[in-house]
Amino acid sequence: MKDSINVGIFGLGNVGMGVVRLLEKNRADIEKRVGKPVRIVKAVVANPKKDRGADLSGMMVDTDPGHILDDPKIDIVLELIGGLTLAEDIILKALEKGKSVITANKALLAEKGRIIFPAAYDAAGCFGFESSVGTAVPIIRTLRESFAGDDILSISGIINGTSNYILTRMTHDRLSFDEALKAAQGMGLAEADPTLDIRGIDAAHKLIILMNIAFNGVFDLSELYTEGIFGITAADINYTRQLGYTIKHMGKAKKTDQGIEARVHPVLVKKDHLLSSVNGAFNAISVLGEFMGPSILYGLGAGPGPSAVGVAGDLIEACRYILTGQQRPISPFSIPLENWLPVKTVPMAEIRTEYYLRFPVLDRLGVLAFISKVLSENRISVRSVIQEGKPGREESPVDIVIMTHEAVEADVQKALKEINGQPFIAGPTQLIRIEPD
Amino acid sequence: MKDSINVGIFGLGNVGMGVVRLLEKNRADIEKRVGKPVRIVKAVVANPKKDRGADLSGMMVDTDPGHILDDPKIDIVLELIGGLTLAEDIILKALEKGKSVITANKALLAEKGRIIFPAAYDAAGCFGFESSVGTAVPIIRTLRESFAGDDILSISGIINGTSNYILTRMTHDRLSFDEALKAAQGMGLAEADPTLDIRGIDAAHKLIILMNIAFNGVFDLSELYTEGIFGITAADINYTRQLGYTIKHMGKAKKTDQGIEARVHPVLVKKDHLLSSVNGAFNAISVLGEFMGPSILYGLGAGPGPSAVGVAGDLIEACRYILTGQQRPISPFSIPLENWLPVKTVPMAEIRTEYYLRFPVLDRLGVLAFISKVLSENRISVRSVIQEGKPGREESPVDIVIMTHEAVEADVQKALKEINGQPFIAGPTQLIRIEPD
Repeated sequence: MKDSINVGIFGLGNVGMGVVRLLEKNRADIEKRVGKPVRIVKAVVANPKKDRGADLSGMMVDTDPGHILDDPKIDIVLELIGGLTLAEDIILKALEKGKSVITANKALLAEKGRIIFPAAYDAAGCFGFESSVGTAVPIIRTLRESFAGDDILSISGIINGTSNYILTRMTHDRLSFDEALKAAQGMGLAEADPTLDIRGIDAAHKLIILMNIAFNGVFDLSELYTEGIFGITAADINYTRQLGYTIKHMGKAKKTDQGIEARVHPVLVKKDHLLSSVNGAFNAISVLGEFMGPSILYGLGAGPGPSAVGVAGDLIEACRYILTGQQRPISPFSIPLENWLPVKTVPMAEIRTEYYLRFPVLDRLGVLAFISKVLSENRISVRSVIQEGKPGREESPVDIVIMTHEAVEADVQKALKEINGQPFIAGPTQLIRIEPD
Repeated sequence: MKDSINVGIFGLGNVGMGVVRLLEKNRADIEKRVGKPVRIVKAVVANPKKDRGADLSGMMVDTDPGHILDDPKIDIVLELIGGLTLAEDIILKALEKGKSVITANKALLAEKGRIIFPAAYDAAGCFGFESSVGTAVPIIRTLRESFAGDDILSISGIINGTSNYILTRMTHDRLSFDEALKAAQGMGLAEADPTLDIRGIDAAHKLIILMNIAFNGVFDLSELYTEGIFGITAADINYTRQLGYTIKHMGKAKKTDQGIEARVHPVLVKKDHLLSSVNGAFNAISVLGEFMGPSILYGLGAGPGPSAVGVAGDLIEACRYILTGQQRPISPFSIPLENWLPVKTVPMAEIRTEYYLRFPVLDRLGVLAFISKVLSENRISVRSVIQEGKPGREESPVDIVIMTHEAVEADVQKALKEINGQPFIAGPTQLIRIEPD
């Protein structure tokens, strides 16, 4: 049996340094679990000279990937650099060389799943990606193993901590979107360029990974309707609060007779719904199984600590297989490659849900009547209306807020197109879909 | 490679029949995951003639345990009969014969962990017990694998669905304890003899199992302070509601410098705490890790469907190891037997927490002053008082409700003993501990 497990790490950023710190702090415990010492012996980073605020004298730091990939003594490779091209190259080469690979790279897994997962399936080493979704929220292993016997009917959740933090600050502290975004950046939760988060792309990456495992196939990111929280205003927060709802950003995938209905966008959640209490940078992922009913997993969705825990769980697992000379008998998806199912998604135009619609209009007589007529002509039934007219201030911009009964997305888009062309419209219509109870 | 996996099942009660139905309904999917058919070929039950409302013609049903245990063709044994002596015998014999074993028997694992876990550790087969705690809530695998890299600081939760259902009905529908218990029995949630649930014993069994895994040793049930919801009254529900709290029944184990502080009893949870929204038969288990922060797993804690999902996850895992001729490299606790830690618990008398105290007293002058004096002499500081006197009706029984600051359990018990001996006391004092935010 080997004397120790040698780990090579790509990337010593927030997540990488979190892993270094965890393995240092919990070294004795992890050795007790695994049976042998686990050591990070090599690191590859862009700038080896950078001060990372920790003693790295135990590892050789270099810029050349071959430093780790070509070293036969390295058992496990941690890919924590993010990005696509280099990360893909590292993962494929490491798997090819029989090393176990652990990655937190949700973008890569979502964009290149058709390449990475088959490679991982064919490889002799383990392939761990628990921290790619919800970091320490143990959703990957749970879907792949604990819930493997049930038929998963839907999976949905709050899977972008940055968006949830921004919405929470807008809701609880009445910040504007820009103020809340700045606060998130100040906390280190949002990047200087927050596009991936506030346009919903990060959540889409994570939902694709969850769908792959829940529905046993590889879904394309392009098939996923994706909308971010960019565009949610303080007015929307206020109206929805009055109506008894909280705005959350969620990803959702649901089995239907027509295929998988999958989408990422802001939603209105009833205030007494459990997910409405998921605040700040927390994530919560809800799984509905035919036999088990609903289940929710909740925890911090980002940060060096939680990410390191996700990576460490996969690392400990890989160590156990390496030290017993065995191969992990479970494929990354729980279902072997040859049994992966063809996947089919439902076009967004065909989905049915309830809608919150806010029309900024000029305060004229007959506007509500016109909007109602167009909605009704498009088979959209109105559940409630808030019209905040200011008496005597005709022609000033006001909001009409309409909550609808269930309607078809294509019908709603058609109606909005007609309404948005009218001269009384003072700004773009806000559309937020409503999450059923 | 084997052509199929043969399963023998002990017990065709609610849980056993749930497993039979799940394996029948999801047969094709499970075969795709595992690679070969999985069949329950034999069952052992007390009464083979009983009509179980399902076609069991595919399996041989008998009353003799040897029917399964002595059959070398049986790969996996499901122990779903519950109880102690016979179940222990079945599990040990099955492990000895190299079969994989899956059990939902929390009482046995809690009472006989020192026998069962080492036997499972030494055995060639797998040993699964995911459904023993929280049924489909994937807490066992999560603690053992996903969170294996973190230092678990505490684990706590609502782990008895029956108690939670009763408290929910008392809170939301203002039922009395007896009415709510009858409703639970009517739903099939509570047994005709509800002792294990309402005395907290079932929750204690589950907490012991969680503590074993979280803290890497085997804890004794006798070391666990255990109190049930028996004794909670509508008056307590009302006062705590006024005070902004919900009464929940929880198990809790926390690392301290003095050892593990572990206890099972009703608690007051602030209304905006996530666990306060866990209603009905749902369970929620909260884990605090040093690196990952708080994490909560939520789902149905009982019932044939969720139990079957827990069993099926373990079953699928065992199949994979059997079919690849490998041994599961992870011990039941995540830490190998030889590294199990000595365990030490903190005596209940030494714990520090806040308290809700309700004193049913005769409405006399000076009673509150006396109670306050005794509390203060015992270093218990009062945070708030509700005294619902009825003017002009002196000597009638009224409640004095006191919320304390943090105090030591031994001091509180000493004070209550002194107060309870007084002639103005009209009934036993109610004590409910308060869960910190």
